[in-house]
Amino acid sequence: MRRLKMIISYDGTDFSGYQVQPGARTVQLEIEKVLQMMHKNELVKITASGRTDARVHATGQVIHFDTPLTIPPERYMKALNVQLPRDIRVLHCEEVAPDFHARYSVSGKRYRYIWCTAAVQSPFRRHYTTETNGVKPDVKKMREAAQYILGEHDFSCFCAANTSVQDKVRIVKSITIDFHGDELHMAIEGNGFLYNMVRIIAGTLWEVGIGKRTPQNVQKIIESKDRKLAGKTAPPNGLYLEHVYY
Amino acid sequence: MRRLKMIISYDGTDFSGYQVQPGARTVQLEIEKVLQMMHKNELVKITASGRTDARVHATGQVIHFDTPLTIPPERYMKALNVQLPRDIRVLHCEEVAPDFHARYSVSGKRYRYIWCTAAVQSPFRRHYTTETNGVKPDVKKMREAAQYILGEHDFSCFCAANTSVQDKVRIVKSITIDFHGDELHMAIEGNGFLYNMVRIIAGTLWEVGIGKRTPQNVQKIIESKDRKLAGKTAPPNGLYLEHVYY
Repeated sequence: MRRLKMIISYDGTDFSGYQVQPGARTVQLEIEKVLQMMHKNELVKITASGRTDARVHATGQVIHFDTPLTIPPERYMKALNVQLPRDIRVLHCEEVAPDFHARYSVSGKRYRYIWCTAAVQSPFRRHYTTETNGVKPDVKKMREAAQYILGEHDFSCFCAANTSVQDKVRIVKSITIDFHGDELHMAIEGNGFLYNMVRIIAGTLWEVGIGKRTPQNVQKIIESKDRKLAGKTAPPNGLYLEHVYY
Repeated sequence: MRRLKMIISYDGTDFSGYQVQPGARTVQLEIEKVLQMMHKNELVKITASGRTDARVHATGQVIHFDTPLTIPPERYMKALNVQLPRDIRVLHCEEVAPDFHARYSVSGKRYRYIWCTAAVQSPFRRHYTTETNGVKPDVKKMREAAQYILGEHDFSCFCAANTSVQDKVRIVKSITIDFHGDELHMAIEGNGFLYNMVRIIAGTLWEVGIGKRTPQNVQKIIESKDRKLAGKTAPPNGLYLEHVYY
């Protein structure tokens, strides 16, 4: 048995998220279907760095699995890409030590959130950015608010209610907010993220950007540990899992 | 009655082309459905600069129609965009003289064809570029071949067999072929294009780029006026109607 690590990218538009669930088209299911074909119909379970929700994209998701096949990593990747649907691509494949674990070995993650602030959203970007109907936020205020999020905090306020996780303390290492043409990008890096944390932060900073709340209000939200005080959860189609650190 | 001219953009992926056809989702149908709602259920027929095939995109298609409504163009455009599906957007709207005709007044068109030459195609580009499985063509040879296409010619060789058009003489004003990162763009401008002409030219120049034929061969193809001598028709999803000149 060898353990393989793969970096994969997927367009979340037509998936009910990453994780297998009955009767739904998911990223995990599509990859395991192909691996099963490659392994004489034996199920090969894959493990990802974490799940992503329906319509959320990935440009740098990481998975691992064990295989008896001795195909070289480069050819393994090609074989998978030939069989996989076009909305999932394997970008990199390498053999790793048997103690590498795509989820438990994670030291950090980087996500990106993209809003389209053009007066008219390009039809080609409708699945890949969150439309703002031409509203342009105050980026300086968003950056000011982001400063309160940096560092180690109990982020209960930015965690979806329906979660089983007990320890909600995480470290946010950096948040950058910049315009790329008409599209506003928020890149956020941390040692780990709670369920919906990036989308709730994006939604809250957006409300700061459009003047619905002050930058200082974000500090109060964090101290309150109360999800109800934070902003709306931003839509999934603007979110990308960009990089997983090990 | 006023005549309105609109510049529209659409993602061709989920359309059976531009033109209305029984039981199919087309761009024309979606726009006429919305206009009908705006006109007390009266049919408002729209006219485009020309049709586009299934999966072909447009960033600068032009349509015109006549309307009794006195809504200012800017608000007319907004009203349409609110009702239209997200894969069609109106980018510009203006009132024009009653003798303006989106099709008959055309003086020229510009199309763009995009190939993705990356070793692994991004899942986000699968509907918007033609994959080459990492093959990188010889751009110099493609440009050399393009020189034979420039100017006024009978382009029967680059016209799909199933066409009713008699006069196949057209003027190709310019062809540029350039890499944008891993994506190869061909931009072509002319006074008019025959059915599938751009896709057959793209397919033929591609075959020159990968050494399947010589640049000089393209001259022979044009002289022959024989479609069978030209290259394969390139896939629709790499093609964009970019601009219509009047």
